[in-house]
Amino acid sequence: MFFLEFSKNGQIFKWPINFSYLPMNNVLLAKPFHIETGAINIAVLNAEQAKDMDIKHLDRVLIKSGKKSVICSVDITNISVKKGEVGLFVEPWNKLGLKASENVTLETVPKPASMDFIRAKLDGAELSKEDIYTIVNDIVNDALTDVELTAFITSSYCKGLSMEEAYWLTRAMVDTGEVLDVGKGPIFDKHSIGGVPGNRVTILLVPIVTSTGLKMPKTSSRAITSPAGTADTVEVFCPVTLTKKKMEEMVRTIGGCMAWGGSFNLAPADDKIIKVEKPLSIDAEGQMLSSIMAKKISVGATHVLVDLPMGPGTKIPTHERAEELSEKFTRLGEKLGLKVYCIVDNGSQPCGNGVGPALEARDVLKILQNDPTGPADLLDKALLFAGTILELGGKAKKGKGQDLALEIIKNGKAYEQFKRIVKAQGGNPNISLCDIKVGPEMFDVKSEVEGMITMINNNLISKCARAAGAPHNQGAGVYVIGKLSMNIKKGTTLMTIYAESAEKLERAKEAIKGKEPFVIQ
Amino acid sequence: MFFLEFSKNGQIFKWPINFSYLPMNNVLLAKPFHIETGAINIAVLNAEQAKDMDIKHLDRVLIKSGKKSVICSVDITNISVKKGEVGLFVEPWNKLGLKASENVTLETVPKPASMDFIRAKLDGAELSKEDIYTIVNDIVNDALTDVELTAFITSSYCKGLSMEEAYWLTRAMVDTGEVLDVGKGPIFDKHSIGGVPGNRVTILLVPIVTSTGLKMPKTSSRAITSPAGTADTVEVFCPVTLTKKKMEEMVRTIGGCMAWGGSFNLAPADDKIIKVEKPLSIDAEGQMLSSIMAKKISVGATHVLVDLPMGPGTKIPTHERAEELSEKFTRLGEKLGLKVYCIVDNGSQPCGNGVGPALEARDVLKILQNDPTGPADLLDKALLFAGTILELGGKAKKGKGQDLALEIIKNGKAYEQFKRIVKAQGGNPNISLCDIKVGPEMFDVKSEVEGMITMINNNLISKCARAAGAPHNQGAGVYVIGKLSMNIKKGTTLMTIYAESAEKLERAKEAIKGKEPFVIQ
Repeated sequence: MFFLEFSKNGQIFKWPINFSYLPMNNVLLAKPFHIETGAINIAVLNAEQAKDMDIKHLDRVLIKSGKKSVICSVDITNISVKKGEVGLFVEPWNKLGLKASENVTLETVPKPASMDFIRAKLDGAELSKEDIYTIVNDIVNDALTDVELTAFITSSYCKGLSMEEAYWLTRAMVDTGEVLDVGKGPIFDKHSIGGVPGNRVTILLVPIVTSTGLKMPKTSSRAITSPAGTADTVEVFCPVTLTKKKMEEMVRTIGGCMAWGGSFNLAPADDKIIKVEKPLSIDAEGQMLSSIMAKKISVGATHVLVDLPMGPGTKIPTHERAEELSEKFTRLGEKLGLKVYCIVDNGSQPCGNGVGPALEARDVLKILQNDPTGPADLLDKALLFAGTILELGGKAKKGKGQDLALEIIKNGKAYEQFKRIVKAQGGNPNISLCDIKVGPEMFDVKSEVEGMITMINNNLISKCARAAGAPHNQGAGVYVIGKLSMNIKKGTTLMTIYAESAEKLERAKEAIKGKEPFVIQ
Repeated sequence: MFFLEFSKNGQIFKWPINFSYLPMNNVLLAKPFHIETGAINIAVLNAEQAKDMDIKHLDRVLIKSGKKSVICSVDITNISVKKGEVGLFVEPWNKLGLKASENVTLETVPKPASMDFIRAKLDGAELSKEDIYTIVNDIVNDALTDVELTAFITSSYCKGLSMEEAYWLTRAMVDTGEVLDVGKGPIFDKHSIGGVPGNRVTILLVPIVTSTGLKMPKTSSRAITSPAGTADTVEVFCPVTLTKKKMEEMVRTIGGCMAWGGSFNLAPADDKIIKVEKPLSIDAEGQMLSSIMAKKISVGATHVLVDLPMGPGTKIPTHERAEELSEKFTRLGEKLGLKVYCIVDNGSQPCGNGVGPALEARDVLKILQNDPTGPADLLDKALLFAGTILELGGKAKKGKGQDLALEIIKNGKAYEQFKRIVKAQGGNPNISLCDIKVGPEMFDVKSEVEGMITMINNNLISKCARAAGAPHNQGAGVYVIGKLSMNIKKGTTLMTIYAESAEKLERAKEAIKGKEPFVIQ
């Protein structure tokens, strides 16, 4: 036994010393875990080992192999990793270029600076430009764990984002992604905040607008919880994943495109935020405004139309809310140098008849082909938006935009332009209604009473179409016949469900069982 | 090609039908992933499969094998799980009792009801008793993902909890765990909200109080981010993981114990919350109040002393904050039928000399043994708390409690009782100072200037002790000599760092490099 001498208040004191401790060892044998997270890098440590190194669950470590290194978030295990080992998920394993188990070194690294700012936001602070850029950079680089990212999203949701914060969040999202170069303006774009089933305005709008020589480098999203996003429906006609070069070329040659917004790195932070936000089913307003604007700025837009569908079952229940959101969109647009025009319309029922990719694609094609069974409400809405852009772009006089838009539909120019776009994106421009498959399982939802339709539950119709298999099964969904104020007899078909299997049809029927997609009084 | 006839506005319309779809199949081959999460069950699905089943990242599924079933949260993979397979982490694999890969069935289940309430809280709603019980039940049963649990914690943090909510949160935490049966009161307990290095009042308090026949079924926590929790320090003397039965027996026979709070299921929701809260470094007040009270009620306490150390570097920077917190503790206690006494004291420097399990244990033992080198400040604080309890318990007249407490230390009765407790918990009651190992690596931090100590950075001292290896290495930590208002010469040792290896000693030195643990002016 050895003693350490120690003096206090003049007294000499002896303390025993124990030499039996092991030295700290940061060299560990890497072991592959054949699982990926799709984002953040995970390293798995043995519980004892972690304690000894003072590393806790979700702490960050830097793992090095030769000249390569990767920052990982730590998971702790009692059984699957032994002392002296470190388990690596697919992402870090590949980033380190490991082929077989070999020694790597591990050291702890502090939490990213973002965490200080996220904590400040939790306490209600207003974040600075630098704070926000740091956070967005960390989001884009997968440096935040799900827990940390959730804290950022919920804090922004609870405490709100100021106009200044939303501005910098937008700029940071743009600057951490790629930006399209489509020449000088005006460049038009359109966004719908969603919530209305069907509503495939974009696929009519882009052909009408770009047929006149105006530019519209349109990107759209895929469905996350809805039965179809615009990108899902466009995909019925042609591929939607375009390269940056391809998009730029299309805008230059034919004025526009209808691409998926995730085709390349356009404001990529948004997608990472959505991945955590969606499981919580929250829509943080400040982040929503920033995300939308960032995508628009990234494609070079100078004029943006925002579709704000209002009414029960939409994201905007009241006119006050619509006004408030309009004002915020316009103000944020102004700060960003964008001209934003908000169009508040009635969103209390599906727009068009089809809900689901193929059914919606059929609606659009019918209108472009001047088929009399095409949905009039969808056409009207498309004309409203197209008319506005044609006037803004100087193609029509004030008040005459919608007439011109209708003319472009009627004279077939919109359809010609649509075919040009479909062909340029690699689809078959001559696709016919019969080529667009639906079903094969179907079920008619009929009215059990007589009366007038006084309410339609958008949410329930979306859930039903989703349960039927949309958007993954392109031909699945709901064909909505009943519309508000329609007089209905007992036994009238209100909507028809399409699914690809009997099970999915059952699931769709289950989704509306005992509920009222249509209120008839 | 088959057609489906469809009529609209009297027109007959034909739609093509495609029979090529595959039926939905919910039978999958289970495949083990040798990794555990320590809590929530994870099932891994192939990306295509998940799309087809309309299952998204973090969705919940019910997996059945024979009569056993388990609810899992879904991870999505592109490579490690093929279509037709489902990967299962260790927890669900074991819960299903699987030995080798075999078929299981999988079906989707809705999100737990908690999510509606958590979303309501994000929107600032006040939660009802039922809402809170649902959430706490889901937390205890690992039904919430990290993202969801984080949303609950951050929303409670941002929006605050009302007294009513804190009350039900406390009750729910108690009711979802085990409750100690220690007979009729008064039953005493004590809690420190922490932030002060050293401060091992409990290990003196329990022997003094219980030596008089009063009851104190004390549970304490282990360190999470500090260099030692009371349980870590008690463990230097004896085991701290006691069964419910053992605790009850000890209270009945010798009046008290010094157990680890995680020994058995006492308010287990708290530990789950802390696991997510700590990586964010936030301390949600409402949850803190509820967690503390829940642990106290679970052990049967009727009278609780709360130590609120105030001052720079503690969790309570100002007197106003101390008053506010005092009032909240007292009010919540009242609602719960507990008598709560808050003691606000100066927490602006370490209490005692040792920081780290062994060093703190030595401080305590010295005081119990009436060793003149024992820290006077720690003794004073213990006497203050013990005196209050002795008066409340009717063992001393008002104003005479501290005198009695000192007498119990001086006459060796506290030490005798301490030995009884240590022996009952399975430790060696005759452990001597020399048996308590420290070091062996050490480093004296000396003053570079002459003057008076005007400030001590608690946080920095804790970080240094932690970096040295505490609490995992019991003998590691810091021995603090410098105290506020001490006059210091150049070269005087302010503190000594102890570590078990040269690397850890370096790490500890690094933690204070260029910083001022002691401000001398």
